[in-house]
Amino acid sequence: MDETNRAVITLTTDFGWRDPYVGIMKGVILGLAPGASIIDLTHGISSHNVLEAALVLECSYRYFPEGTIHLVVVDPGVGTERRPLLATTGRYSFVGPDNGVFSPVLSRESPYRIYHLTKQRYFLDRLSSTFHGRDIFAPVAAWLFQGASPAQMGEEISSMVELRIPEVKQVACNLWAARVLRVDRFGNLITNIGRPEFETVLEPRTSFQVRFGQHTVTRLRESYGVAPSGEIFAIWGSSGWLEISSNQASAAELMGVRENQEFTIEILSTP
Amino acid sequence: MDETNRAVITLTTDFGWRDPYVGIMKGVILGLAPGASIIDLTHGISSHNVLEAALVLECSYRYFPEGTIHLVVVDPGVGTERRPLLATTGRYSFVGPDNGVFSPVLSRESPYRIYHLTKQRYFLDRLSSTFHGRDIFAPVAAWLFQGASPAQMGEEISSMVELRIPEVKQVACNLWAARVLRVDRFGNLITNIGRPEFETVLEPRTSFQVRFGQHTVTRLRESYGVAPSGEIFAIWGSSGWLEISSNQASAAELMGVRENQEFTIEILSTP
Amino acid sequence: MDETNRAVITLTTDFGWRDPYVGIMKGVILGLAPGASIIDLTHGISSHNVLEAALVLECSYRYFPEGTIHLVVVDPGVGTERRPLLATTGRYSFVGPDNGVFSPVLSRESPYRIYHLTKQRYFLDRLSSTFHGRDIFAPVAAWLFQGASPAQMGEEISSMVELRIPEVKQVACNLWAARVLRVDRFGNLITNIGRPEFETVLEPRTSFQVRFGQHTVTRLRESYGVAPSGEIFAIWGSSGWLEISSNQASAAELMGVRENQEFTIEILSTP
Repeated sequence: MDETNRAVITLTTDFGWRDPYVGIMKGVILGLAPGASIIDLTHGISSHNVLEAALVLECSYRYFPEGTIHLVVVDPGVGTERRPLLATTGRYSFVGPDNGVFSPVLSRESPYRIYHLTKQRYFLDRLSSTFHGRDIFAPVAAWLFQGASPAQMGEEISSMVELRIPEVKQVACNLWAARVLRVDRFGNLITNIGRPEFETVLEPRTSFQVRFGQHTVTRLRESYGVAPSGEIFAIWGSSGWLEISSNQASAAELMGVRENQEFTIEILSTP
Repeated sequence: MDETNRAVITLTTDFGWRDPYVGIMKGVILGLAPGASIIDLTHGISSHNVLEAALVLECSYRYFPEGTIHLVVVDPGVGTERRPLLATTGRYSFVGPDNGVFSPVLSRESPYRIYHLTKQRYFLDRLSSTFHGRDIFAPVAAWLFQGASPAQMGEEISSMVELRIPEVKQVACNLWAARVLRVDRFGNLITNIGRPEFETVLEPRTSFQVRFGQHTVTRLRESYGVAPSGEIFAIWGSSGWLEISSNQASAAELMGVRENQEFTIEILSTP
Repeated sequence: MDETNRAVITLTTDFGWRDPYVGIMKGVILGLAPGASIIDLTHGISSHNVLEAALVLECSYRYFPEGTIHLVVVDPGVGTERRPLLATTGRYSFVGPDNGVFSPVLSRESPYRIYHLTKQRYFLDRLSSTFHGRDIFAPVAAWLFQGASPAQMGEEISSMVELRIPEVKQVACNLWAARVLRVDRFGNLITNIGRPEFETVLEPRTSFQVRFGQHTVTRLRESYGVAPSGEIFAIWGSSGWLEISSNQASAAELMGVRENQEFTIEILSTP
């Protein structure tokens, strides 16, 4: 095992920070894998929101070194028949419940293999029915870190639960219906308009209208700081999605917009 | 010193995350013990709530590898005559103020030894009267990690301040008065009804009534996901206490229940 | 490179904890510097509040081991002409935007050198215009940790943007106008009255009046626990500033005082 390649385990959960659940998972990991670097991606996923976890993972996973094990515990089906999974690509491993949370990353990291985790000797001795983050997922991530092979820990399977990021829909010749995927701490609206598909139509010289109810956004800016105070503008965000932002102010508050809200974008003319 | 055995220091405080107090303690630890793995258990203990810290520690400490040093700073008596303590069991060490915060864990980890930390050479040079987490407890944990012996750092004492987790009280033949110890992020009510004492009377086939004012809970479920939406049920939680929960909803919100609230449980018939 | 001297990188941002931005920065750092210990100072700086970040850094940095790299990303000017900086003193390094955030620490750690980070080979391959924490500052901190020299990564410059902590102003013979710099989680009011300048005038035996509107504080206490319940008192805080506090209660709530509020202090007689 190349230590520099497999040195990191990330955690993404909906456990919050006030309860000791995350700390307990780290204790389990460090008991089995004393050298692991454990990095919190976030524990602020809204309770049971699998799509939110999938989006956070999708925009983050590739900034970690090859060999990183990404552990996700947003698990409304804990204790039911939902399967515990391990997925491996050439570069990363993913451990968590079979509820679609890995669909977006795996579609970008094809080919991959998926394993249904079945071998109890890689779990804690006594399984609870409410905290598989502690009893199954943390120990499996630790064993994987220690060099256990996926085939030792489970059975390869050919499909898993799928979940898709809501897509932009074309509703007329130059008109699309889009959606706010997420609002970040700064009040930036992260939309589902992807840079690869829209970069050529949406440029600073394009004439366009983004409409949220009565609010209209017509400028594409290249950085926050160049916009005058109070202006709401579009900008290509750091994760590759179009964002709606304001310079040192919250676009979400200024327009009264929340996560999951729909809006339209119309291209009036392209340069 | 066996490195894999003594590699972890956990932190439990009421400092929150916005102030730099926790980061400062970590800086002090890493200055004296460069190889330490420092794990946050939580910093969200309510200000000055020693019982809450004791409960969080009690349900978490045993998931950490042997040799772990558990450092707790919930310290309303800082700067007064209250003693700084180090307690050691065969498996773990505990560092923090003498206010009862270690009573519940030490009663489970008997036998143990307690030391009054008196040797200033193991503290920071200048002691403040308001931040012994930084000036006393962090450096002592670091020196312990580095191999200093408890007897070097203080004097063994025979008793400490005691604090007890509120107990279930039997008030009639099949009727008990119990209490909500804690509400977690998901709105699960963690009660003081312990699995070892109540598991044989409270089974899925037992007929019982848990009463919170006008709300009555009559089902014991084995996992969240098997319960129909909107049902409030009892479940054995992952820490060994009975919890009152709802599937993908907050039992606390549905019933308007808060931490420390009392309720009754009546056993109507056992299988 | 002495590993024990350069083993820590601290992070101070206004990113909060819910978004994955901090985790992404850590992934970038660990990809380039696999052995780094990364410590969070805080991510709860108010959005774009450079002064708040400067104050947090100033009261924390010196508790970290020599060689620590302090990375600060509170960066309202991201994507504009504002320069990315690296500053080095004999003991510490500081990486972040040129907006004054390092003024207070550098004035205490003189002499120092400042470098404008210009060498793109030490940045990520594709620069965004909105997230230089990920694209510039995290990789530069990692390269520095790995032993790259400041002169390799940028050009030495002779001045930077300056920012000053608001100073106490003398307004009459024994009367000063002061300010609340920060309110911590416990409701302690951290003021800009520094211990070095005021310790000799302000002692427990000094007769003085601190006035916040209609509230008057006249006692200097040596620890929280010696004050009777409900009393609001002054105390020399752990960072070397005068604080206004209450025993197990929030002075901020009791008086309705917020960050940045002004107040006066009058010395009536000294011992």
